[in-house]
Amino acid sequence: MEKKILLTDCPDAKGLIAKITNICYKHQLNINKNDEFVDHENGRFFMRTELEGRFNDETLLADLDDALPAGAQRRLVKAGKKRIVILVTKETHCLGDILMKNYAGALDMDIVAVIGNYDTLAELTGKFDIPFHAVSHEDLSRTEHEEQVLAELTGKFEIPFHAVSHEDLSRTEHEEQVRAIIDGYQPDYVILAKYMRVLTPSFVEAYPRKLINIHHSFLPAFIGARPYRQAFDRGVKLIGATAHFVTDDLDEGPIIEQDVIHVGHAFSADDMAKAGRDVEKSVLSRALELVLNERVFVYGNKTVVFK
Amino acid sequence: MEKKILLTDCPDAKGLIAKITNICYKHQLNINKNDEFVDHENGRFFMRTELEGRFNDETLLADLDDALPAGAQRRLVKAGKKRIVILVTKETHCLGDILMKNYAGALDMDIVAVIGNYDTLAELTGKFDIPFHAVSHEDLSRTEHEEQVLAELTGKFEIPFHAVSHEDLSRTEHEEQVRAIIDGYQPDYVILAKYMRVLTPSFVEAYPRKLINIHHSFLPAFIGARPYRQAFDRGVKLIGATAHFVTDDLDEGPIIEQDVIHVGHAFSADDMAKAGRDVEKSVLSRALELVLNERVFVYGNKTVVFK
Amino acid sequence: MEKKILLTDCPDAKGLIAKITNICYKHQLNINKNDEFVDHENGRFFMRTELEGRFNDETLLADLDDALPAGAQRRLVKAGKKRIVILVTKETHCLGDILMKNYAGALDMDIVAVIGNYDTLAELTGKFDIPFHAVSHEDLSRTEHEEQVLAELTGKFEIPFHAVSHEDLSRTEHEEQVRAIIDGYQPDYVILAKYMRVLTPSFVEAYPRKLINIHHSFLPAFIGARPYRQAFDRGVKLIGATAHFVTDDLDEGPIIEQDVIHVGHAFSADDMAKAGRDVEKSVLSRALELVLNERVFVYGNKTVVFK
Amino acid sequence: MEKKILLTDCPDAKGLIAKITNICYKHQLNINKNDEFVDHENGRFFMRTELEGRFNDETLLADLDDALPAGAQRRLVKAGKKRIVILVTKETHCLGDILMKNYAGALDMDIVAVIGNYDTLAELTGKFDIPFHAVSHEDLSRTEHEEQVLAELTGKFEIPFHAVSHEDLSRTEHEEQVRAIIDGYQPDYVILAKYMRVLTPSFVEAYPRKLINIHHSFLPAFIGARPYRQAFDRGVKLIGATAHFVTDDLDEGPIIEQDVIHVGHAFSADDMAKAGRDVEKSVLSRALELVLNERVFVYGNKTVVFK
Repeated sequence: MEKKILLTDCPDAKGLIAKITNICYKHQLNINKNDEFVDHENGRFFMRTELEGRFNDETLLADLDDALPAGAQRRLVKAGKKRIVILVTKETHCLGDILMKNYAGALDMDIVAVIGNYDTLAELTGKFDIPFHAVSHEDLSRTEHEEQVLAELTGKFEIPFHAVSHEDLSRTEHEEQVRAIIDGYQPDYVILAKYMRVLTPSFVEAYPRKLINIHHSFLPAFIGARPYRQAFDRGVKLIGATAHFVTDDLDEGPIIEQDVIHVGHAFSADDMAKAGRDVEKSVLSRALELVLNERVFVYGNKTVVFK
Repeated sequence: MEKKILLTDCPDAKGLIAKITNICYKHQLNINKNDEFVDHENGRFFMRTELEGRFNDETLLADLDDALPAGAQRRLVKAGKKRIVILVTKETHCLGDILMKNYAGALDMDIVAVIGNYDTLAELTGKFDIPFHAVSHEDLSRTEHEEQVLAELTGKFEIPFHAVSHEDLSRTEHEEQVRAIIDGYQPDYVILAKYMRVLTPSFVEAYPRKLINIHHSFLPAFIGARPYRQAFDRGVKLIGATAHFVTDDLDEGPIIEQDVIHVGHAFSADDMAKAGRDVEKSVLSRALELVLNERVFVYGNKTVVFK
Repeated sequence: MEKKILLTDCPDAKGLIAKITNICYKHQLNINKNDEFVDHENGRFFMRTELEGRFNDETLLADLDDALPAGAQRRLVKAGKKRIVILVTKETHCLGDILMKNYAGALDMDIVAVIGNYDTLAELTGKFDIPFHAVSHEDLSRTEHEEQVLAELTGKFEIPFHAVSHEDLSRTEHEEQVRAIIDGYQPDYVILAKYMRVLTPSFVEAYPRKLINIHHSFLPAFIGARPYRQAFDRGVKLIGATAHFVTDDLDEGPIIEQDVIHVGHAFSADDMAKAGRDVEKSVLSRALELVLNERVFVYGNKTVVFK
Repeated sequence: MEKKILLTDCPDAKGLIAKITNICYKHQLNINKNDEFVDHENGRFFMRTELEGRFNDETLLADLDDALPAGAQRRLVKAGKKRIVILVTKETHCLGDILMKNYAGALDMDIVAVIGNYDTLAELTGKFDIPFHAVSHEDLSRTEHEEQVLAELTGKFEIPFHAVSHEDLSRTEHEEQVRAIIDGYQPDYVILAKYMRVLTPSFVEAYPRKLINIHHSFLPAFIGARPYRQAFDRGVKLIGATAHFVTDDLDEGPIIEQDVIHVGHAFSADDMAKAGRDVEKSVLSRALELVLNERVFVYGNKTVVFK
């Protein structure tokens, strides 16, 4: 007896649940759990079906294709572990939480590699016997003075200075190296666990619906750099985090999961950042679990999430 | 085109979703929303189906009865307003919130009457042109001194002294009067909106799955009288509220909805009670909405709630 | 024995707590509760002191003025009820909740009047024996056809058409009528309980730190009109509400209180608006309680809130 | 310039804040943050003062002792890292989270040792170069068959079988070994990070106000063994976690922090346990931060927590 998940996504029509569940029934598959959603505004039907039994994938999918309307997408996914590559910069909390959950077997995944644009997190990754690749984008020919100037700029903008100081060519070159490493691992998903470097459109296009980012604000508030500073300056009473698929528009992809915590006037921007770390890691972790369990459909700029 | 909700609850078996949705399809009914749940531990299947179309109730239910296994329960409910009777004592917040939502048309209900064991809330109810019935259980022959003594006792125990001071006969008599009034209105549900009087088993049995209570604690913590005092004495950092169906066991019926709020050392027992009012009224109100929309199945001492 | 609250707000300096509490001690006043906050970034000190005893306001304030640094603000406020005027348009939930809390004596206020730009809520207000003033901004000379066109526009933009269709003069005239009514009541605060009309700068300037608005989003996300539609289109997983003081910048004043609730893909824009009503009313109500209890300092575009 | 925290706890009296802050002022110490609380019911005053300057501890404390009423307790604590010993059984999540925060320097502590009643977590602890001590309480003379029987029992009761099967002597012997190891490290606090073994009164008495436990339920609900099973059987809609100081009464010590998450009918007891892990680790971690920052006073069976 195997377990698989059937994911159907098609134009809405009468009798779709009956048709799909009938086919499953004919194939003597048991439905352990079923979820559907109809977006009446856009006339689209979504269904996630947890099946158990003996599968003949070919005939099952053929039967479905006969029954479903034109424009239907369907996938039959074997339940089980996904291959994950993680991209990081310097912050410990999100990577640490995922490494620990991976170690404990708490999520259906194998972390196959971690890639950093700094080597700061190599040691931590190494503790868990996972390969770490540092792909630096630093210009090694800089003088010490130049480094100081850039370091100050970084302090002001809270983003790696390389994001602004390097020309497009070197950005592209850097991404090519990162992509080569990613592609060597053939991952199912690439997680940006506080990877503080803006991606180019061609990078994003190379991994459609595979790139998951954690943004340190309740999007769409405080898009862009230094969201905690923005939140502090605005005097908000809540700060949040958003896990989303990455698309071309910075911080604008389909949202998977969000959460907030209460803060008050006594929180400095740094206190907010510190308090935010727990909600960041927990939102990313919950989003990962949803994606790994095949509970998330993406359509347009939104998601359907069957919890 | 009508809208109805089909509620099915039966022993689990293969192909149930297919069978039920097929019957709907044959009857040319559109499924707007569908939810199922299988309790694998107890082998029971639950399904709630929002249907739209032209209904022939008789043949639809007959077809279902042919298809469903022995021990099945199914109901076809017309979407629309339910008749509600509310029982109260002296506190304003829960009654006030429901009256306001009733006035605004925010819930699918008509409040047809309010019954109080005091007349404290007659004025408020009257503002909304809803009949109020005061059914006192006070012994009018008491001296002023006796009243004072009893009032002090009440202060100590936070429950109406009548609950303890009257003998069984008078309790039964009081309930008979209340029941006569309730039955005159033929309500779908009876809401205990801070009705601070313990009900007898025979009262509870007269309204199976129709009595909904709001308890001012996160059950099963602080069962019984004066939960906020108990919470204060224990030094908890959260206080809550629980909406549940009433069964014979005091504060032990199937839970529909619960929520909590954070409190701290600076909250006195009275502050907790005050802060708790908002969570009480919001939990009761959400539970009511779930029940009115036919989203709640009761089985054993638990509920299945399709949100 | 009286109870008063001392509110001090001044440039930070050494020994401020000692100086202020010493003066209170010399005046034989008991401190029931004390809160301080120093904004180290801006070098500003805030202190809220609940005092009990026999007050000689004049000498107490004189002593404080001698002790505090230049640029200090201090107020000695008698604990007790504030006078409130409420501005509304057509929505019931926020006004209803405040009326009910006023009726129950749950907040330290007297609602002295409600003013609407429509008469929709006159009946509800009347139930509680509170004067309602309808100040229409409708041009009564419109033809039926013009009304229809405008009604359609309203449907599209979810803001009262008058907001866009009337010229500045009439807006000013309308506000003058509203201001005349407000000023006749001499309120301590003016609450915008879903008042869906943009205020002019001169209106806002007339009531500094007295205008409190509830905005139906988690600011600064979804500023402006139709926030629930914006939230729906963005596919967020949380919706919120923000209570803030009103300043010249639309939806940009100092935030008093915020909260959110979880939503999902199954929520239409209307469902979000419906779900949002409970969080709107509860956020406004909590903000009101904080302000009425003199727990909120405003400075710059932020607040210090001693909970 | 040093930073220290002054913690005062004494019978309430007039002018206490003035007296204490005056003494600080005379010593030319700057108050960065100050919090007070008066328990009016019990007439007790609590104050936490963050000081900065040049300290003469001896004269400062002497001045305080002169000024404070009889029965006062005061401590002057240097801000900085505390020494922590962690006790564990087999579960990864709480230990893992604390190890990671220790590695990241996110909490003011040094984990000096981990002690387990099994060696399951030795490997994980070793990754972070922290000594791990396994102190088994297993009777090595058991046959394989006996082990199987006991393992089954364990499965049924969700507590280590040793808790019931060993006689008092061996429990005492086991604890003596554990205590010897703990005492060798001279820790400031001992954290029970899912240590699934009941402690004897003499163990508890040896570490007054130093033992912090995470209980996997919202206490006082579901005291004792298998709280998630209890929660499942009761059909609750929220599950929680409680961090508390350990006293003689099992699960009855002063509560430091609590939180809950929403669950539904679709959660099995195992799903609840899994979902509960995140709230357990986050509650324990927040409690630890509060204790490490000297924000928690214990009195009677309650805490005062200055957040």
